[in-house]
Amino acid sequence: MRIVQKYGGSSMGSVERIGLVAARIARSHAQGHSIVVVVSAMQGETDRLLKLAAQLSPRPRDREIDVLLATGEQVSIALLALALREKGIDARSFLGHQVRILTDNVHGSARIQTIDAAPVQECLDRGEVVVVAGFQGVDQDGNITTLGRGGSDLSAVAMAAAIAADACEIYSDVDGIYTTDPAICSRARKIDRIWAEEMLELASLGAKVLQARSVEFALKHKVTICCKSTFDDGDGSWVIPQTVTMGGEAMQGLEGAVVTGIACDRQTARFSVSGILNRPGAAAALFRPLAQDAINVDVIIQTAPQDGYCELSFTVPQVSARRTAELLESLRPTMGFGQVRLAENVAKVSIVGAGMRSQPGVALRAFEALGDAGIDIELISTSEIKISLVVDDRFTEAAVRVLHDAFELHAVGR
Amino acid sequence: MRIVQKYGGSSMGSVERIGLVAARIARSHAQGHSIVVVVSAMQGETDRLLKLAAQLSPRPRDREIDVLLATGEQVSIALLALALREKGIDARSFLGHQVRILTDNVHGSARIQTIDAAPVQECLDRGEVVVVAGFQGVDQDGNITTLGRGGSDLSAVAMAAAIAADACEIYSDVDGIYTTDPAICSRARKIDRIWAEEMLELASLGAKVLQARSVEFALKHKVTICCKSTFDDGDGSWVIPQTVTMGGEAMQGLEGAVVTGIACDRQTARFSVSGILNRPGAAAALFRPLAQDAINVDVIIQTAPQDGYCELSFTVPQVSARRTAELLESLRPTMGFGQVRLAENVAKVSIVGAGMRSQPGVALRAFEALGDAGIDIELISTSEIKISLVVDDRFTEAAVRVLHDAFELHAVGR
Repeated sequence: MRIVQKYGGSSMGSVERIGLVAARIARSHAQGHSIVVVVSAMQGETDRLLKLAAQLSPRPRDREIDVLLATGEQVSIALLALALREKGIDARSFLGHQVRILTDNVHGSARIQTIDAAPVQECLDRGEVVVVAGFQGVDQDGNITTLGRGGSDLSAVAMAAAIAADACEIYSDVDGIYTTDPAICSRARKIDRIWAEEMLELASLGAKVLQARSVEFALKHKVTICCKSTFDDGDGSWVIPQTVTMGGEAMQGLEGAVVTGIACDRQTARFSVSGILNRPGAAAALFRPLAQDAINVDVIIQTAPQDGYCELSFTVPQVSARRTAELLESLRPTMGFGQVRLAENVAKVSIVGAGMRSQPGVALRAFEALGDAGIDIELISTSEIKISLVVDDRFTEAAVRVLHDAFELHAVGR
Repeated sequence: MRIVQKYGGSSMGSVERIGLVAARIARSHAQGHSIVVVVSAMQGETDRLLKLAAQLSPRPRDREIDVLLATGEQVSIALLALALREKGIDARSFLGHQVRILTDNVHGSARIQTIDAAPVQECLDRGEVVVVAGFQGVDQDGNITTLGRGGSDLSAVAMAAAIAADACEIYSDVDGIYTTDPAICSRARKIDRIWAEEMLELASLGAKVLQARSVEFALKHKVTICCKSTFDDGDGSWVIPQTVTMGGEAMQGLEGAVVTGIACDRQTARFSVSGILNRPGAAAALFRPLAQDAINVDVIIQTAPQDGYCELSFTVPQVSARRTAELLESLRPTMGFGQVRLAENVAKVSIVGAGMRSQPGVALRAFEALGDAGIDIELISTSEIKISLVVDDRFTEAAVRVLHDAFELHAVGR
């Protein structure tokens, strides 16, 4: 098999851990697999470098910040290649520019355009292990670029696509993807197999195992991802890159369940604006200044108009709440709406599952379960494979547990 | 003027010092000079990286060690470029491969072959300050290489040659080249101007301000070097790249003196082997096993044969003394020499000056001065512009001071 293995910062957290990573790679290599490894900077290194830079300049994004940060992964590839060679394995490190991970020139959040798989292929043909620096690329003028948060996952998935790997294994300190955050719900269960589209929803909704951008890339380029632990030998969780929402026939969740996972996004604030005159363009007039201020408006609900007036509710990140309130007040003279209510601590709890498409009554079951538990639902928003419910943040844990039980997520699977 | 400025590890020792360096560059830039800066890794960084590597692998030289070490200079160029831009100066960093500092593929001590000055030239034409990573290059297959100890000096001199700079300024924490080590001789005086060939001898003989390889490169490519302090505004010492020993007519020292400087090389051991049958190939038979063991034999003296036998004396680094003794003993059965005497703590004190070529009696003056001070000379070796004297290490400081006084080095120049 041809495998890409990606090890994150905590897996590369110390010389000892790098030794463990090398041992794991050596085992896969001994099984006859062709292996390309993608690594992140050692834990803490990126922060150390950013702190140095901040003392000299407050610039957040800059060509030179990318030159600086790219050293973190460079140290990692060199150390890991040394550790592998010490184990008698021919290993060779590659920087972003050496495998020509070509990106656009948006420093700090560049997008991968192409990868030159030829030098990697040559090494694999010779039986060498290839160690590639994650997070970094090069633009067409030869400048170093970086891919932004979670960039190494994206490097790994893109590399897997470029060499047509059988699997892209993403190693971290957790052993897979869970039905929900085990810190919140002790009955959370590791998922064996999940559709990439479900994972994409979960990742976008706050699950942190995989970056949404990487899942999106994997889905588009048909890369199978497996999330595993660096520190045990479990089977991990497989993310299957097949489109389920676009498919003509209804697809079930891979483990036969209607709901596959529950994510929650805390640190959210809810606004409700009443007495809005219901005319064309009213919602646009309200949200335009927020968009111009780059405030990320999430769930938006509009009530049916009554006597020509309606109510608009929406959520924003908690950090944007104060600015949102100011902007709304500045609109009042021209728009003339009524009361603005703000709930500063709410959370969005979302249930995700490909099976929802063919199973009616999923929303009802969720509402009933929360109702039975005495939890008020403040806003509801649904899409083909997810239902998001906004609740007071005091009820977040309870809501997650209640829903986890209601859909029997602890029991599904093998 | 077109100037290359090189800042070493101590100049880049902290964020504060990088700020000082940026301020100094800004002043030169404001004077209208075109500036290319070459920097080393921050003080301590290379050791930190080597320590990490040593925990994983004992390999001293390796492709991956170069990948690892090159990050040190990469951090420096990014931070310095950020600091310059914060001062409103357009600055752009370049890695070794980005200016194509092409080297051979001897990892850990690569030799520079060519530099592509075009990208640097473009930046200078736009009025930008160019910041280049020292110590690193790239081989013809795109692998990162490093130049070995003192490599950043060499990068700076090579860059100066490539862009035909008017001067290559080497900044450190000392304000120039001294007639001898001020820690040994308080009357040591800063030299204003010195021939590169004299500097080459001094550097080879233990003076640490400039690496011998860099001086050799400067001499060959006619680069004028100026050694200055990062932390004051003195004029520094100029190293003039003109060949003096090959010239037809005799040249004086640049400051009119016969002797320009005194270097000493301690941690040396002396061997004397007596009773060697004086036949062709005897010296070769003695030194062949030492060479095969990579023992660096320095001064070699053979006495005139007496009754068909001669005595051979030579120096080796103190760390090689024990191994040398073993090798000599292994030769005894076949060569049949007599007594082997070892002086474990000797030093080589050398006086250097272009003026010696035209001034007879310099050696005599040195012998007399040492004799008057009661210092025994154990071995003597001379070349066109230097005289090396081996003395017991107990007398090193005294010998340096006596010679410094004898040739009035404190008084020469302005």
